[in-house]
Amino acid sequence: MSEGRVARFQRERSEGNELVFKYAGTNMKRFWTLDGQAYHEGALDAKTKELLGLVASLVLRCDDCVTYHTIQAHEAGVSTKEYEETLNIGLLVGGSITIPHLRRAFAVWEELQGS
Amino acid sequence: MSEGRVARFQRERSEGNELVFKYAGTNMKRFWTLDGQAYHEGALDAKTKELLGLVASLVLRCDDCVTYHTIQAHEAGVSTKEYEETLNIGLLVGGSITIPHLRRAFAVWEELQGS
Amino acid sequence: MSEGRVARFQRERSEGNELVFKYAGTNMKRFWTLDGQAYHEGALDAKTKELLGLVASLVLRCDDCVTYHTIQAHEAGVSTKEYEETLNIGLLVGGSITIPHLRRAFAVWEELQGS
Amino acid sequence: MSEGRVARFQRERSEGNELVFKYAGTNMKRFWTLDGQAYHEGALDAKTKELLGLVASLVLRCDDCVTYHTIQAHEAGVSTKEYEETLNIGLLVGGSITIPHLRRAFAVWEELQGS
Amino acid sequence: MSEGRVARFQRERSEGNELVFKYAGTNMKRFWTLDGQAYHEGALDAKTKELLGLVASLVLRCDDCVTYHTIQAHEAGVSTKEYEETLNIGLLVGGSITIPHLRRAFAVWEELQGS
Amino acid sequence: MSEGRVARFQRERSEGNELVFKYAGTNMKRFWTLDGQAYHEGALDAKTKELLGLVASLVLRCDDCVTYHTIQAHEAGVSTKEYEETLNIGLLVGGSITIPHLRRAFAVWEELQGS
Repeated sequence: MSEGRVARFQRERSEGNELVFKYAGTNMKRFWTLDGQAYHEGALDAKTKELLGLVASLVLRCDDCVTYHTIQAHEAGVSTKEYEETLNIGLLVGGSITIPHLRRAFAVWEELQGS
Repeated sequence: MSEGRVARFQRERSEGNELVFKYAGTNMKRFWTLDGQAYHEGALDAKTKELLGLVASLVLRCDDCVTYHTIQAHEAGVSTKEYEETLNIGLLVGGSITIPHLRRAFAVWEELQGS
Repeated sequence: MSEGRVARFQRERSEGNELVFKYAGTNMKRFWTLDGQAYHEGALDAKTKELLGLVASLVLRCDDCVTYHTIQAHEAGVSTKEYEETLNIGLLVGGSITIPHLRRAFAVWEELQGS
Repeated sequence: MSEGRVARFQRERSEGNELVFKYAGTNMKRFWTLDGQAYHEGALDAKTKELLGLVASLVLRCDDCVTYHTIQAHEAGVSTKEYEETLNIGLLVGGSITIPHLRRAFAVWEELQGS
Repeated sequence: MSEGRVARFQRERSEGNELVFKYAGTNMKRFWTLDGQAYHEGALDAKTKELLGLVASLVLRCDDCVTYHTIQAHEAGVSTKEYEETLNIGLLVGGSITIPHLRRAFAVWEELQGS
Repeated sequence: MSEGRVARFQRERSEGNELVFKYAGTNMKRFWTLDGQAYHEGALDAKTKELLGLVASLVLRCDDCVTYHTIQAHEAGVSTKEYEETLNIGLLVGGSITIPHLRRAFAVWEELQGS
């Protein structure tokens, strides 16, 4: 069976992070830590934070970032309706230029439904 | 007393919208309607949707949009901690280039606390 | 014979749209309708509108969007010189960061010449 | 009478260009020349080219650039309907984040009607 | 005498940072620290790093960020020719959409020459 | 042996440029010349200019442009520490949305170390 979108993303992300950490100085490594902590539960729960990361990724049109937050949102228990409403806000804010990314976002979501 | 940030924004937004509607065709008017509806309560509540609009506006670095969603979030009962955590995600995703917008966002928030 | 750029784009776009419509709510579907209507002939003819969509797509650096409007422009009878002048404005406005997208735009245009 | 949007823009643009040319090297000056030439009549007429510059400026959300191409489009004889249809494509492509710029674009257009 | 561009920027930046730190959580404060450290002398000297911050700010079209790095570059001893060549790369990479920011960058530089 | 990232990029860039020049008018060709000249040694040396092009490419998130300037920087004798510090500034300015591009940048750098 061919490797799916989710599996391929996770493998490439893992390999890529390993390479970054081979070269990264202290400052860059600390950015990684800060970035991870920003999504920890606080006044806002982890689910909401993943949706915030998702909509920011969509309007900035970063496929890898959309895929990452889609997987995280799915794991955090986001429903299909919540996922769609979040992407819809991204579509309205960011315009039709986000549509190719929206197509790929739903392809990841579709794949996650069968997992 | 001089006009505050919130009052000036609301006046300019209102005057601007009036002008848009003087010129807008049907298609453009329908976009306005769709854009408004995207933030109505659905599977996600209105408060979460305003925070989604806020973070999208911050990473795209639109001061007027940040001001708008800051006012809406405040009206929807968002707490200061929730507001800060949302902006923090925008800062991490969008980087230091968002900092001038972050400063102005907190200036609006500060003004709203006294209202 | 291997699938060309145009055929692959059209297949993926069609599959992607089908998936979007499986998940899309009313608001998202209406956006699709509005987006389509914006390019209908009006005070400006359809050809000019495709060129407007093309240059917007180039400066925002969306390959799929550039491919889409390239195909549409070709069907609307845009000449090679008109196509090049449109991309040139996008290059001047958007800078050298658009060059990789320009290369792929001309690859689609080249393929369309033989069709 | 207070200085209008168009007059203020033209004064600031003129002063700014003078300053740029005080400091600019050969390469930068040549960019200015190329940029000007891109809008000269060719296979596409000057009016269409101004609309291309306008929509590119709107989706990239540059107020000064939108103002510039609005003035140029007005001088080239663009009608209000053509102007609105161009901005509408920019709105659909670029999303609601363009709305503050759209408001200011129409304010310039409105001012030009009385000129 | 009216407040100049540099003085106004520094006052607003200082007031803005004070407000950010009134509201910022630990994560946001750490971002500020990381951001400052990224420009400290290392394998690259501080002057080169300011030019890197400057060109990044120009292509992302953030006036406040351009002003900040212009002041820092001036203090680090950047020459007018080095400043112009850096902005020229930003202009070529980022296109004519950067021109309004380029005008304002040179206005800050001009003001700094008399200081 | 499969074609590496650098070889594939150079082949596609070369093929793409050939196609652009088949279609390009005078204005577009002159842009290419200007763009090349911007990186020639002047008040700033070629190495610094490649790092300026690199950080601009990273914050604008253009993989092909990052790959190009990575190769050029390597040829100009940039050290690994200098390369990392440049990317780190891009990461801080541009935020976590640049991370996928950072991963691919280091993959190109890694490949160049073995060459």
